[in-house]
Amino acid sequence: MSRRQRIVMTVIILGSFVYVILTQAVHMLDGLPGEPVHPEVRKFCSAMNKQKVNRGAENESSPIIYVVTPTYKRPEMVAELTRLGQTLSMVQNIHWIVAEDSATCSRPITGLLQRLGLPYTHLATPMPDVYRKERYVPRGVSNRRAALQWVRDYGKNTGVLFFLDDDNAIDIRLFEEMRSTETVSMWPVGLIGEYTVSSPVVKNGKVVGFYDGWPAGRKFQVDMAGFAVGVGYMKKQKKVTMPYIAGHEEDGFLKSLNININEIEVKANGCTDILVWHTRTAKNPLRNLNIESHQNDNIKVLTDNMKQLGMIK
Amino acid sequence: MSRRQRIVMTVIILGSFVYVILTQAVHMLDGLPGEPVHPEVRKFCSAMNKQKVNRGAENESSPIIYVVTPTYKRPEMVAELTRLGQTLSMVQNIHWIVAEDSATCSRPITGLLQRLGLPYTHLATPMPDVYRKERYVPRGVSNRRAALQWVRDYGKNTGVLFFLDDDNAIDIRLFEEMRSTETVSMWPVGLIGEYTVSSPVVKNGKVVGFYDGWPAGRKFQVDMAGFAVGVGYMKKQKKVTMPYIAGHEEDGFLKSLNININEIEVKANGCTDILVWHTRTAKNPLRNLNIESHQNDNIKVLTDNMKQLGMIK
Repeated sequence: MSRRQRIVMTVIILGSFVYVILTQAVHMLDGLPGEPVHPEVRKFCSAMNKQKVNRGAENESSPIIYVVTPTYKRPEMVAELTRLGQTLSMVQNIHWIVAEDSATCSRPITGLLQRLGLPYTHLATPMPDVYRKERYVPRGVSNRRAALQWVRDYGKNTGVLFFLDDDNAIDIRLFEEMRSTETVSMWPVGLIGEYTVSSPVVKNGKVVGFYDGWPAGRKFQVDMAGFAVGVGYMKKQKKVTMPYIAGHEEDGFLKSLNININEIEVKANGCTDILVWHTRTAKNPLRNLNIESHQNDNIKVLTDNMKQLGMIK
Repeated sequence: MSRRQRIVMTVIILGSFVYVILTQAVHMLDGLPGEPVHPEVRKFCSAMNKQKVNRGAENESSPIIYVVTPTYKRPEMVAELTRLGQTLSMVQNIHWIVAEDSATCSRPITGLLQRLGLPYTHLATPMPDVYRKERYVPRGVSNRRAALQWVRDYGKNTGVLFFLDDDNAIDIRLFEEMRSTETVSMWPVGLIGEYTVSSPVVKNGKVVGFYDGWPAGRKFQVDMAGFAVGVGYMKKQKKVTMPYIAGHEEDGFLKSLNININEIEVKANGCTDILVWHTRTAKNPLRNLNIESHQNDNIKVLTDNMKQLGMIK
């Protein structure tokens, strides 16, 4: 090997090391996998603390359920939030935290929330750019983390935290199941993974494992909609977090809550009833419509409205 | 050409004619395309005529909306009907007609309807076998036809008929828009087709055409969730029907109502607001689960329940 070849080889090898170190630096700098190096940008949009419409029988002493719904701009967003929001407005003592993956507060979300009339908080927290480049993008983490912080800061100790995606389907009886949660409670989630369900395995009233089609080395093999957490219990834990690691968000969060599997509170008739489903809505392309021939009819205003709702470009 | 060859040719040509005639015979026999030769098998499952839960402010004089939802057995069925049924139970003066494409009445549907407590009728009407073999299967026609007949037989003349698929998303304000329908009313439907919307084109308050990505030679280029019909008006028409022709169900039905395009009642702020979306839910495979190692825990009962809900085999 000539001297020149040796130099080229050395440069390649050293270069590779530098590349690997640089790409991993973001995780190595703070020592915790899935934790961001820089503080996330978090924006408070708006809130309402009291039910707008008086529904009479509201029981003030019943624990509030903080329902955290992450969302992001796409043609289906307003349809999903309308459908879910209407369902939530049937439930008493709910506080809906709608957390956008966005740098700005989307106006159609603000409009919807104010019209629905249920107590809510609207936050906007974009995913840090560094995670958008990953092979498996950890969607919905930045906004769930922002909501978690909000619940820790402002949630009542008697309250209950629950994550519910905007396209999931829920039987509202589940809210009364989870309302008594003190530490961490769990139940089955339907229409998910290789088994069409993800559920704790329960023996003699205790959780002894999980029935889930994707173990992936997880201690808690559960879906985001499969558990609730007592706010007072969560506040007592030292370092509650949700990691930016796709597929391991639930596991990372539950581990940070320091709960033992056999301490989990079993709900939904001993984890035998399906009261929530991980339904997924088909995606529509974000289109640019040509409405040249419709400048003098309703289609102009209709498509302007659709643009505002984020349904088209 | 030898005599033998001529015979073979003749047999082939004659055979082709016979084949074409036989395959078309079903349509030619009764003279109307899309109309079945034999009467459909229709089954009444159960019904409830009064709201179970008294919600106080029910206005007895307000027109009843007959919401027709066709459905069929699949893993998502109960999730969809739970989600939609809860939404409908928020609306006053609704009668939900759940019409199954099935020879039998599904027990989870009966259970759900009785629990929800809104006035309902549950019908079971399987698609005639002849249509299941077509290239484009006319799904949901047999059951919608059964519901149509029910509304003609038992619906109040002051009432309003509206079709809503089990996976669509609706802003409940649309019900108050359609409640005043006398003949046929229309509005835009979002998240459908090549334009992300299907809408009447309105000029000077009158419908003058349609903005829809799939004209297909249809006079009424509208989605099933894009119109409502006054029950009294419908009863006055001679031969109301919905043809078994995939993609042309709405057009065939509206044509049979003898309405002129310029007589259509324009709703949703002059057809500029989106209050209903043709969302579609991703399908899950119907699985056979192996739960051998779970004979002594909750997973046995859980999967038995899932079988009853039609989520697994």
